[in-house]
Amino acid sequence: MTSKQQSSPHQFPDGSDAFPHRHLLGIAGLQPWEILFLLQEAGQWVDLNRKSSKHASRLEGLTVINAFFENSTRTLLSFEIAGKRMGADVVNMHAAHSSVKKGETLIDTAVTLNAMRADAIVIRHASSGAVSLIADKVDCPVLNAGDGSHEHPTQALLDALTIQRRKGDISGLTVTICGDIMHSRVARSNIYCLTTLGARVRVCAPPALLPAALDQMNVETFTDFNAALDGTDVVMMLRLQNERMSGDFIPSPREYHHLYGLTRDRLALAGEDALVMHPGPMNRGVEISSDVADDADRSAITEQVEMGVAVRMACLDVLTRRSRKVEGWS
Amino acid sequence: MTSKQQSSPHQFPDGSDAFPHRHLLGIAGLQPWEILFLLQEAGQWVDLNRKSSKHASRLEGLTVINAFFENSTRTLLSFEIAGKRMGADVVNMHAAHSSVKKGETLIDTAVTLNAMRADAIVIRHASSGAVSLIADKVDCPVLNAGDGSHEHPTQALLDALTIQRRKGDISGLTVTICGDIMHSRVARSNIYCLTTLGARVRVCAPPALLPAALDQMNVETFTDFNAALDGTDVVMMLRLQNERMSGDFIPSPREYHHLYGLTRDRLALAGEDALVMHPGPMNRGVEISSDVADDADRSAITEQVEMGVAVRMACLDVLTRRSRKVEGWS
Amino acid sequence: MTSKQQSSPHQFPDGSDAFPHRHLLGIAGLQPWEILFLLQEAGQWVDLNRKSSKHASRLEGLTVINAFFENSTRTLLSFEIAGKRMGADVVNMHAAHSSVKKGETLIDTAVTLNAMRADAIVIRHASSGAVSLIADKVDCPVLNAGDGSHEHPTQALLDALTIQRRKGDISGLTVTICGDIMHSRVARSNIYCLTTLGARVRVCAPPALLPAALDQMNVETFTDFNAALDGTDVVMMLRLQNERMSGDFIPSPREYHHLYGLTRDRLALAGEDALVMHPGPMNRGVEISSDVADDADRSAITEQVEMGVAVRMACLDVLTRRSRKVEGWS
Repeated sequence: MTSKQQSSPHQFPDGSDAFPHRHLLGIAGLQPWEILFLLQEAGQWVDLNRKSSKHASRLEGLTVINAFFENSTRTLLSFEIAGKRMGADVVNMHAAHSSVKKGETLIDTAVTLNAMRADAIVIRHASSGAVSLIADKVDCPVLNAGDGSHEHPTQALLDALTIQRRKGDISGLTVTICGDIMHSRVARSNIYCLTTLGARVRVCAPPALLPAALDQMNVETFTDFNAALDGTDVVMMLRLQNERMSGDFIPSPREYHHLYGLTRDRLALAGEDALVMHPGPMNRGVEISSDVADDADRSAITEQVEMGVAVRMACLDVLTRRSRKVEGWS
Repeated sequence: MTSKQQSSPHQFPDGSDAFPHRHLLGIAGLQPWEILFLLQEAGQWVDLNRKSSKHASRLEGLTVINAFFENSTRTLLSFEIAGKRMGADVVNMHAAHSSVKKGETLIDTAVTLNAMRADAIVIRHASSGAVSLIADKVDCPVLNAGDGSHEHPTQALLDALTIQRRKGDISGLTVTICGDIMHSRVARSNIYCLTTLGARVRVCAPPALLPAALDQMNVETFTDFNAALDGTDVVMMLRLQNERMSGDFIPSPREYHHLYGLTRDRLALAGEDALVMHPGPMNRGVEISSDVADDADRSAITEQVEMGVAVRMACLDVLTRRSRKVEGWS
Repeated sequence: MTSKQQSSPHQFPDGSDAFPHRHLLGIAGLQPWEILFLLQEAGQWVDLNRKSSKHASRLEGLTVINAFFENSTRTLLSFEIAGKRMGADVVNMHAAHSSVKKGETLIDTAVTLNAMRADAIVIRHASSGAVSLIADKVDCPVLNAGDGSHEHPTQALLDALTIQRRKGDISGLTVTICGDIMHSRVARSNIYCLTTLGARVRVCAPPALLPAALDQMNVETFTDFNAALDGTDVVMMLRLQNERMSGDFIPSPREYHHLYGLTRDRLALAGEDALVMHPGPMNRGVEISSDVADDADRSAITEQVEMGVAVRMACLDVLTRRSRKVEGWS
């Protein structure tokens, strides 16, 4: 398995010769060159995926377990396709069928997956911190596919890759993230990722959905969406979860759309050629209007999905290099 | 990937050199030679599947997504096995876990699957026309695995292959289809397929389950099953859906069996050696009696299942030839 | 496919040259040398699974269907990983989506899976005897992954392999199985397996959970756990099913723990270095206390999971040798 082609050009200014992290639990704590390294690695998989035959053999003979304790069709599909395209044996563990329902502790589940000699475990869980808890108990790399309102690092990486390919260097760009900032792991991971890469990040939300902890993050906060849009290069809309739509946080979807929905008129307030993004699935007519979502020039929403598979292929590849004994990664 | 062995003998009297359709959305509109071409292609996979090692590499490196918005164990298994035996990376998207539940539009789901660079998408959906809607939005071939009461083309093809192997030339045969004709996509696709291939088709149902639109189809209609059976070469029984069993359409399963169940006595009214077929799963004792279903000489029900895998292998192969740049299919 | 390396050293004192059984429906009826042969075969897969690249090609081109009519995350994962590591095309049939729900008979389901040309079918079912019923109707090997309160043979094999690796020869060891003996297929398979291999087996349960039929089995019965532990080499705890916890069988989980829970104090009554086992998932604080479960020296619970994958790889390999025409297995 040791092979020269599998190692990557050195990119690490601190003198280390390889991505130093065992797991991908979040974006917080990653250095800018580490993020850029993962984005560069993902680039090659974008190219492969556009070919008719899109199969790599790097992970051949490895077992990747997708342990989804919280349902997510898109993210699971994306990771499953990524693992299979890399040649791995991929198995999905669905929460709905899981022994967690029989009262098994999360740690016991982790130890079980580990004992089956998984080479990478991808985990989605409704509780913040659950993924980190599992990572402490296993011998293989763990990839966080979203945990509670904590982090969703591959989402931030795919968003960064999308911006990079459309806008070039992320450093110096102004990015506005609008929606339920308080509960969003997508927002949190993106804030870490984009500020680390040197972007100016604005967050915008109704007052009830704007967390207090933002003081420590290097962002500007807005409650007026029109003001937040002024001159921005990228507008990143968040999905409004159904459970927030009626009741404590939002008066109604219609009201929300009126104040925080991205419409064509409102988009005109942003910078010329501002990019429109959304992690999906969209609530059309709530946080985003259909004409904006479907604008082939401005919307990068479909491209985000495509970048997602490539980013996950890269992460699976990079994190398993040590166990695969790729040259320079021992 | 371009290879001579992968192309097929020319069979197209109109001078075209390859199966001209991008998708398989239904049987309606297919020419007889196009249907016969697919049946001939399926033949080789029947042979392969009977071997101990039953794996082809034609679809290696391709991603096939089975997007089942309506549950169906048998059809999903059949397509999954077909895709894997052809060497593809196969992923299943289960409706029950899907973001459709989160309110995502069907079109957005289609665009998402497409952005993940699927090479073929197999779709089952409870609404007639949903599959065609998706096909319009994606770059890859779409195979209809059953949409509402519209079409179920691979079922008709596997039925035709079964008849062909048991009875020889389909042209000139008399085929009686009995059951809930009104709501059955299996009946509809079979009527198109069999009449196109030159069979005489009779349909038989209780008056409340016989659609008016049959006038435009080239079939004879019956409400008396005994009369419909007279001299027929093939008897194709439809599954009586549970939701029709009590209430508006059928007085009771027992009554239905009395009037429309295929029993040994009734089968004697059909032609000598008449073939018995059923798409499964059967309601034994309702639309078919067990002694008829299990009659090794007359019943082709098990063979239908076997032909199903082969037909789906053929369809996946044929429809991806353009993207695989098989010689003669550009 | 015929190859010399794939055949195994002869081990069968009765002069036969290969494992003589078509299916693995239970441990009852297996000869000691047959069990030892399967354990020896599993050993090589333990070694493979500990490598970074853990893929064999023996089952390449074969289709393995996991038909789970009863949910079980762990056992399904273990069989799925085993099949994929052996190179097979593995498909899972989930009961929750199955046509069994549409009223199809079990036999019809079996015939359908068979017609799809499965090369091995792994079945889990809530009814004792259901797996055997299916085995009678199909052409390929059937592996019982647990049927009702009848047998769970691969669990007994993985338990035996774990004991063998920790304790050496099983013959002469004293093994105490404690818990709901009456309803436990794990207990039943282990009793057959361990007594066949020459161990002294003690079973211990509350009187209401001790079956009468044990008279015919070669075991000692206890209702006092402390007495049962005296001098035992291996303590095998069974999972207390939730449905037994309140009501007819057990006064309460707390009461059960008091009388039949394996605690550190109680473990001291067993032989020095007695091994602690549990098939999982555990109810910590009910049948076993956490300090015992997590004792790295005494507890083999994690190792059992690991052995499970290896044992299932061995069973899939051995049972398909005839159809793969491995030399000496015709």
